[in-house]
Amino acid sequence: MTDASPNATQHIPLNRPRLIAPGPVEVSPQTLLALAQPQMHHRSPEARAKLVETRGKLTQLLGDPFEAVIVTGSGTAAFEGALVSTVPAGAKVVNASAGKFSERWGEMARRLCYDVTEVQKPWGELLDADEIASACQGAYALLITHSETSTGALHDLERIAAAAKATNPDLLIIVDGVTSYGVAELRAAAWNVDVIVSGSQKATATPPGLGFVLFSPQAEARLIKNTPKGFYLDLQRELSGQKDGNTPQTPAINLIYALDASLDRLLSVPREVLWAEKKRQNDALIAAGTALGCHSWASRPSPAVAVLVPPEGLGGKKMAAQLADMNQRALPGQAPHEDKVFRISTLGYADRYDALSVAGILEDAFSALGVPFQRGAAVAAAWQVISS
Amino acid sequence: MTDASPNATQHIPLNRPRLIAPGPVEVSPQTLLALAQPQMHHRSPEARAKLVETRGKLTQLLGDPFEAVIVTGSGTAAFEGALVSTVPAGAKVVNASAGKFSERWGEMARRLCYDVTEVQKPWGELLDADEIASACQGAYALLITHSETSTGALHDLERIAAAAKATNPDLLIIVDGVTSYGVAELRAAAWNVDVIVSGSQKATATPPGLGFVLFSPQAEARLIKNTPKGFYLDLQRELSGQKDGNTPQTPAINLIYALDASLDRLLSVPREVLWAEKKRQNDALIAAGTALGCHSWASRPSPAVAVLVPPEGLGGKKMAAQLADMNQRALPGQAPHEDKVFRISTLGYADRYDALSVAGILEDAFSALGVPFQRGAAVAAAWQVISS
Repeated sequence: MTDASPNATQHIPLNRPRLIAPGPVEVSPQTLLALAQPQMHHRSPEARAKLVETRGKLTQLLGDPFEAVIVTGSGTAAFEGALVSTVPAGAKVVNASAGKFSERWGEMARRLCYDVTEVQKPWGELLDADEIASACQGAYALLITHSETSTGALHDLERIAAAAKATNPDLLIIVDGVTSYGVAELRAAAWNVDVIVSGSQKATATPPGLGFVLFSPQAEARLIKNTPKGFYLDLQRELSGQKDGNTPQTPAINLIYALDASLDRLLSVPREVLWAEKKRQNDALIAAGTALGCHSWASRPSPAVAVLVPPEGLGGKKMAAQLADMNQRALPGQAPHEDKVFRISTLGYADRYDALSVAGILEDAFSALGVPFQRGAAVAAAWQVISS
Repeated sequence: MTDASPNATQHIPLNRPRLIAPGPVEVSPQTLLALAQPQMHHRSPEARAKLVETRGKLTQLLGDPFEAVIVTGSGTAAFEGALVSTVPAGAKVVNASAGKFSERWGEMARRLCYDVTEVQKPWGELLDADEIASACQGAYALLITHSETSTGALHDLERIAAAAKATNPDLLIIVDGVTSYGVAELRAAAWNVDVIVSGSQKATATPPGLGFVLFSPQAEARLIKNTPKGFYLDLQRELSGQKDGNTPQTPAINLIYALDASLDRLLSVPREVLWAEKKRQNDALIAAGTALGCHSWASRPSPAVAVLVPPEGLGGKKMAAQLADMNQRALPGQAPHEDKVFRISTLGYADRYDALSVAGILEDAFSALGVPFQRGAAVAAAWQVISS
């Protein structure tokens, strides 16, 4: 690491540390306070009522009358639960992949002995609706990632779902909405998708530890009783219990209280306002990066994360390490593209003015690394997006 | 209040609330956690050791071998303690005033029946060293406010103290350092000042409730035993007890633990770096305001607060109310100048990138109020100061 001058770094211990990664994210004081309440018991009437209330808010954030199940586990646990609870053993599953997370769902489905057909695009590219639709003939389910956090691509879920359902009306579409639910435009009912999976440490700005699955009425009707593919992640049983505030196993009840507090903030505005605001913030990050000679890896960027290809000679790992040296936690790329990109985000408890801060942070990181750029350009570009 | 368009305000519930007033200020998570520890007992060996440790850190932040006393009370309580514990009943006291807080010390000294001579300048102007020095002939003590939070002026304490001590070498100089200690250049020993008073909710970024008094060795030698002017605020007795970690009365012990955590952050850099960083932030706020047609009331601004005279037609109260509507807590002026200025600050747990955020917030406030300005000018001006 080359520092422009000692004076440029002496103040760094006074920097306010920020999580500017696409999860875990900054968490509000209200949410942290909810987490730290006197230990509640998950079998108490109050806690059962809270679970029902929080499930209702998850549905409200989606904006469609889906049934929500909260899983104590990561988004991967929730996705596995969605898969094994809706797709019969051995059924044909199409996995559409173009990045780390969508690849994981194919790996999961193969491990669980489904009959998996892969429809792949190179990382960073967009999935092709017709190609997917064609592969879905005769399939039971399609696994698709809406916002691919490894590449920053927001796939055209509306178009893909329409094409796939036109080919195969009985197809069950299971959406990895981990970094799209609550941040990107997602109209589950209108787009005819069946299952949405997400996790607490993303748009809902809650600490990690909870996954969510939202089922359409049609998907709920197809839930499998006593799935042989899972016990802990049997979501038919979970949903049945959770409708009354019961969970078959012990839930991370403090996190549920925290999630409830976080959802109140997100529900304080119409979902279109939330989507527009988060898109504006992420567009500002991309504009800042572009002004510094980076470019967005994805041609159709997710509002959850700016995945930026740095200028020639500056790797993603070096950039993420420099930001960490400044007490700002971003991410490099994911294997095998660790060094191709760096990833920054204001996905969580952060506002448009925090996005402006990140533009300044990027300039200072470039300056510290000795990468030439025009001082002020990233800040001006970000602010232009924010204030337009 | 005129809003430019409904679209410009719909996102406001998603804004992250900020304290951008010159106290109370933003407080770090580490400090809040220290406050929320299991209730400690102030007579336990651990709590007594913590008081001694925290007093040591207050001295270290000053940078001179003064003795620190922590008062449970506001900065005003600490100032009163400093006054009654060092100045004999009826003694001649010179009060130098040019704003709300310095006026208060004169009022206090008169109430306590000292023989008070006022040396006044209009609010916003700078105190005159020669005028003060001349008034100090035959006086026991000089009361002087270093950073005047009501006007944003940083008085030239070094020059004033030198002139006053040249006239009267035995003069005791009691400094209101409420918003200068820990933020503005303050070299107490070199400048030959005797007593420094401050409070927890300012540069030390701790919740309100503690005042501090730091005594030079000379001032300590002049502490009055059994002052007839106060019992709770008898700092001779306090200091004697606090040297061993004892307080005569019950202290706000949780706040002392919190203060200790806050001081660790400030002491993570040399004091010159801290002073330069906070000055840079405040200069950025003034530059942002200037780009919007405001100007600093003070010709020699304190690094603790930007006190800005808004353009003709826009009052300070309206501006502070608009910022509050955006969930950003600033302040108007103080009586009788409430409407003349508005006051903004990143005095507490806030960094240079937060100062950039405030520039954006100011632009959006002007936009919402329909005051004409060049979009981007304030952000660019602030960033230029920060990144230069």
